Amino acid sequence: MNKSQNIYDNQDFFDGYKKLRDNQYSANNLEEKPALFSLAPDLQGKAVLDLGCGYGENCAEFKALGATTVLGVDISEKMLAVATAEHSDIEFIRADMSDLSFLKRKFDVVFSSLALHYIENFGLFVKDVYSLLNDGGYFIFSQEHPLTTAPIAGASWSKDADDNVLHYNLTDYARGGKRSTRWIVDGVEKYHRTFSEIINALVTAGFTIEKMIEPIPTKETIERDKSWEKYLHKPNFLLIKAMKKME
Amino acid sequence: MNKSQNIYDNQDFFDGYKKLRDNQYSANNLEEKPALFSLAPDLQGKAVLDLGCGYGENCAEFKALGATTVLGVDISEKMLAVATAEHSDIEFIRADMSDLSFLKRKFDVVFSSLALHYIENFGLFVKDVYSLLNDGGYFIFSQEHPLTTAPIAGASWSKDADDNVLHYNLTDYARGGKRSTRWIVDGVEKYHRTFSEIINALVTAGFTIEKMIEPIPTKETIERDKSWEKYLHKPNFLLIKAMKKME
Repeated sequence: MNKSQNIYDNQDFFDGYKKLRDNQYSANNLEEKPALFSLAPDLQGKAVLDLGCGYGENCAEFKALGATTVLGVDISEKMLAVATAEHSDIEFIRADMSDLSFLKRKFDVVFSSLALHYIENFGLFVKDVYSLLNDGGYFIFSQEHPLTTAPIAGASWSKDADDNVLHYNLTDYARGGKRSTRWIVDGVEKYHRTFSEIINALVTAGFTIEKMIEPIPTKETIERDKSWEKYLHKPNFLLIKAMKKME
Repeated sequence: MNKSQNIYDNQDFFDGYKKLRDNQYSANNLEEKPALFSLAPDLQGKAVLDLGCGYGENCAEFKALGATTVLGVDISEKMLAVATAEHSDIEFIRADMSDLSFLKRKFDVVFSSLALHYIENFGLFVKDVYSLLNDGGYFIFSQEHPLTTAPIAGASWSKDADDNVLHYNLTDYARGGKRSTRWIVDGVEKYHRTFSEIINALVTAGFTIEKMIEPIPTKETIERDKSWEKYLHKPNFLLIKAMKKME
């Protein structure tokens, strides 16, 4: 009973996504991954859960950083086939992360990289994550930036006649809810949430906000490719580190 | 030694501002004020500080809500002249809120309504507020929305030939720092900060984030004046309630 869309098992999407992830200059590799790992606590001896683990690359790094156990969960069979083949020392479970009730153990750190914008009921999801954490544990996630997910017609930029970016065309920021966009293929379903909706859901679940990052391209990245400068107008990602308070 | 600009003692600004505040349909009265008061804890018996109190209207309401003592601080002599004349039961001090070291007592709740975007060093300011609060006390503030303060050239909208708003022209969101804009008069100095800069400064000072509000116009407001619909693309205000944890 999948509540979330499983776009990653669409062959065209899967092929396009694989190519994108292999690009060392992707926003994922240049911005999101360094920010995510900068938020990680010392993982030595820790039990780690990775929600929306995809190929399991992050899982392998959590293990390399000292985690005792790493469990990767993903909705996509194709993704997990790659993950299992490449990382035999890590446990993977295929499941829709919008219902985590099948998990009967607790974790010290729950990571989720660029998967939360697929979750419809964020408040419920965050409560599930909270109950899966040991006291003092962390929930660390990245998602598309709320300014990216906001426009109902899809993210777009205004440019001048010479193709220079003038501004980001911001619409619908305060209209939370489903977005159907084209990303690699048509009809990818995502959910837009404002900053306040995200923060309030975490606080309501019991989390303490520890840190927030909206990564920007480095000087080197902009020098290599001037088109990256536009992300100083509108960042690509939002990352949050939240803690389950000691009782 | 004023570090912050004192635009409110400019006569043209003061006159224009007074007119704006008297308008019952201003964003201030329709959106900001209800949101600010919705964040207030029970004020019965509490010591309240209002930073950037202006005319002292909020101070009078805090008193009416049961606060034992209310102190209003503002940089503007003209504003405080009105405040003192209208609210004889409230104490007002003229001071630049970017240096609060002159305050030798503690408070249960510190409010600040639409004044923080004038503060240059937000991290330092937030530490000052933290040290002025009793354990378990609250810091509750409103400010212009970060998407409003972002564009270096000033906030603007794109419209079609029939004057319908198409989108908000977002630029420079990730470029924090000084903004010199026209608001009532030319050359009003404000500071732009991203969501992450605001949240991280609060957390670093020791605050726990309790709630965040980005108010949107009500259905009635949009029905009365369709031009308000654009604030669903880009809100006017950001409000945060933060708590000083019990030691």
